[in-house]
Amino acid sequence: MCEALAMGRGGAWVFMAGAALGVCLEALAEWLLRRRREVRVREVLFFPSRVTCVEGLLAAAREDGGKGLRLAPCLCSLPHEESELSRLLARLLSARRSLELCIFAFSCPQLSCAILLLQRRGVRVRVVTDADYMAVKGSQIGILRKAGIQVRHDQESGYMHHKFAIIDKRLLLTGSLNWTTQAIQHNRENVMIVEDAKYVKLFLEEFERLWEDYNPVNYIFFKEKEVPKETNNNPGTERKFNK
Amino acid sequence: MCEALAMGRGGAWVFMAGAALGVCLEALAEWLLRRRREVRVREVLFFPSRVTCVEGLLAAAREDGGKGLRLAPCLCSLPHEESELSRLLARLLSARRSLELCIFAFSCPQLSCAILLLQRRGVRVRVVTDADYMAVKGSQIGILRKAGIQVRHDQESGYMHHKFAIIDKRLLLTGSLNWTTQAIQHNRENVMIVEDAKYVKLFLEEFERLWEDYNPVNYIFFKEKEVPKETNNNPGTERKFNK
Repeated sequence: MCEALAMGRGGAWVFMAGAALGVCLEALAEWLLRRRREVRVREVLFFPSRVTCVEGLLAAAREDGGKGLRLAPCLCSLPHEESELSRLLARLLSARRSLELCIFAFSCPQLSCAILLLQRRGVRVRVVTDADYMAVKGSQIGILRKAGIQVRHDQESGYMHHKFAIIDKRLLLTGSLNWTTQAIQHNRENVMIVEDAKYVKLFLEEFERLWEDYNPVNYIFFKEKEVPKETNNNPGTERKFNK
Repeated sequence: MCEALAMGRGGAWVFMAGAALGVCLEALAEWLLRRRREVRVREVLFFPSRVTCVEGLLAAAREDGGKGLRLAPCLCSLPHEESELSRLLARLLSARRSLELCIFAFSCPQLSCAILLLQRRGVRVRVVTDADYMAVKGSQIGILRKAGIQVRHDQESGYMHHKFAIIDKRLLLTGSLNWTTQAIQHNRENVMIVEDAKYVKLFLEEFERLWEDYNPVNYIFFKEKEVPKETNNNPGTERKFNK
């Protein structure tokens, strides 16, 4: 009887040990899940950016093909420290396979330089932009096109006003920032950096929609002078080509 | 001996039951965590929006103080179905305590109407905007101010170009969309709807930074005529007041 009682107590201890093990496993699973969430990139860059030298960053990417980004020494008078622009550039230069860029206005030479580096590195770059803004003075779109990068643009009454990029179909950069020096150095702007499969999928689908909508086979070339978007206030006379 | 053996077997069973319970608890914890992640709002609205009637949505919010949003019957000729604008409005009208709005251009009457409804409902509304764009024809900023909503604006050389809103310090709406009828009905735009404490915190901090930077006690009123931003291409002559 005493022996049975002792075994009964032993059974209770075993039960408690099992339960404790279960709680530990549960805590471990929770910790792993939390860690998995934490390592996902969730960052926001707020502009204006301090004006810093990013030539070292670009030179390093140029030299080693982007295998490891490191700041090469530079002798110019600008501060050689991290800034919002350098962080944006570093994210862009991390691309290894693909870059989908959907940008309203693009005139920043440093960002253009980064895109050209990616193209030379063999990254598949595709650009969607706004027809009106790609023609303004300082636009980098012509430079990208000359380098062989595929660019498609709207032919609509409204603006192609997105400002997002998708890196390696994994990382989304999106926000209010047009890629212009004015916006980077003077405006209050934001760029969210999001590593989230759901958001990436939704923006990628939007990119592919635009890529098809703006297929050059659908472009219409006019002989007569068009009414510019800015002066067209009558919805009844809007240009509508692709829809 | 046989009795002890039986109790030993009993102990093993108890151990296995404990272990099984542990595994079940672990699975439950994982399921709960996954579910918690899933119920978080992660949505993107892509514009242009179909033109639909949103009067029912606004009328319902007006009548019941936003306790439950339902579509009231409306006899106008527009389609009475969900659209990107109606989804944006429904998110806005879900505010119960606070709304921080940081918007470059605001001329959409329906969105303005929603903000006024929130103000009447007792939601604390604060607006930050761009000085140049709040003065253009059709801007809703004056209407909001007349209703007693606190509005602050920049006095900088660059634009206050953000387009985000924070609802109840819980939900973030951000993207490329200015709150104008042109952008909503004609442009290619995006609005991300994000329920993520980290992003909300970062954008709220940016809002509070701007709210302090644009405190009216820091405004400077000039007697001589200012050079408008649009024609000021020389960085050396930029207006810099707050920094």
